[in-house]
Amino acid sequence: MTSRKTPLWQSIAAALTADISSGRYSPGDRLPTESELSARFGVNRHTVRRGLASLAEAGLTHARRGAGVFVAQRPTEYPIGRRVRFHQNIRAAGRLPSRKIHLNETRGADADEAAMLRLPAGSKVISTEGISLADGQPIALFRSVFPADRFPGLIDALGRLPSITAALAENGVSDYTRAFTRVNAKTASATQAVQLHLREGDPILRTISLSVDPQGTPVEYGRTWFSGDRVTLTLNEE
Amino acid sequence: MTSRKTPLWQSIAAALTADISSGRYSPGDRLPTESELSARFGVNRHTVRRGLASLAEAGLTHARRGAGVFVAQRPTEYPIGRRVRFHQNIRAAGRLPSRKIHLNETRGADADEAAMLRLPAGSKVISTEGISLADGQPIALFRSVFPADRFPGLIDALGRLPSITAALAENGVSDYTRAFTRVNAKTASATQAVQLHLREGDPILRTISLSVDPQGTPVEYGRTWFSGDRVTLTLNEE
Repeated sequence: MTSRKTPLWQSIAAALTADISSGRYSPGDRLPTESELSARFGVNRHTVRRGLASLAEAGLTHARRGAGVFVAQRPTEYPIGRRVRFHQNIRAAGRLPSRKIHLNETRGADADEAAMLRLPAGSKVISTEGISLADGQPIALFRSVFPADRFPGLIDALGRLPSITAALAENGVSDYTRAFTRVNAKTASATQAVQLHLREGDPILRTISLSVDPQGTPVEYGRTWFSGDRVTLTLNEE
Repeated sequence: MTSRKTPLWQSIAAALTADISSGRYSPGDRLPTESELSARFGVNRHTVRRGLASLAEAGLTHARRGAGVFVAQRPTEYPIGRRVRFHQNIRAAGRLPSRKIHLNETRGADADEAAMLRLPAGSKVISTEGISLADGQPIALFRSVFPADRFPGLIDALGRLPSITAALAENGVSDYTRAFTRVNAKTASATQAVQLHLREGDPILRTISLSVDPQGTPVEYGRTWFSGDRVTLTLNEE
């Protein structure tokens, strides 16, 4: 190396990163154009472009063709661990949780559901499907099934109460914990894309989880499809 | 309902599921054609097709245009928790682990790396990048950085020893645990696709993790890009 000076593009990237952290540019804001930035920093557009590329690489911005460069929304951090509660998780991220139920029904368990919930083949399950939102923005599709024989009042409670936790509590399950969570990456199907306001092929985090009561008996088998851009699953060890 | 009989397509799906679980058809095998199955079960092809659709929906099979329906490879289950060790994880899944290093280098930490490892700005890190394989099949790209001042012998050890665990042990870290893991879904870039033997746009599980020594001091900041089809991240609670 002939010089120890910071390259210009790095110093532009650092200045714009500081602007984003300080809130001068907020999530969703459009950054100034390349020519505006080249005037502001007194460098050529090639140098500006290299600085912008480094922001995009770090996930701080994304370009929309023909529209400019935008500050990325910070993904909602969604803790997964022994206790996973949708409303608490979203509130802890400083956002307002809500859920929209698409379908509550009682039906026969498929082989996978019966095995997970340790029910005899042919057992009935209560199924609830819908969409989870944070500040009104769709973040996940969910489908959860529960043993129908054990919880005759659950289907009514799911329709009436705002959360699965509340509906289970009314049906005698005052506490439950996750036995396991499995995470895969998928891409959005056409129907998932419409519902989550994504494009077909966008990344999806699919979780499969089993929740058990304090005696270790399965009470809920859940599947969730999170928007891969809007959610970061976090696992914190104490 | 006028009848309590199992629909024919469900019974075909159940029979084929049993064939797959029993190993009559193994991962990667082509299933018989629709007309062969319709002869075997004595039903029309529409019914066979509905049964096959239910297997695909459950992730047991996938269709390749013009080639037929194949039994899906079971993803490697990769536990994430307090103790994450690549070689142990892959061996526990009954597969043979190996790693190929692409680059070991000592260089300046970027802002993100310095913050994660709690190093002063301008500190040096040792970086190791490469690819992880199970039974010779690429399953993940990785990049890990370590504080260079604390581990002067690490870059040599990483080149010589088969695992990060062994290299850290030789440098005085006999144990380390995960402080956190964060999981996002991404899609494969062109270069990631080539290295992981995927197609561009295929789903990727990207994890970011911090490992600490028994005193809680960060020793490794790691990023891993798992093939979303070949790996299931699992989180088991005892």
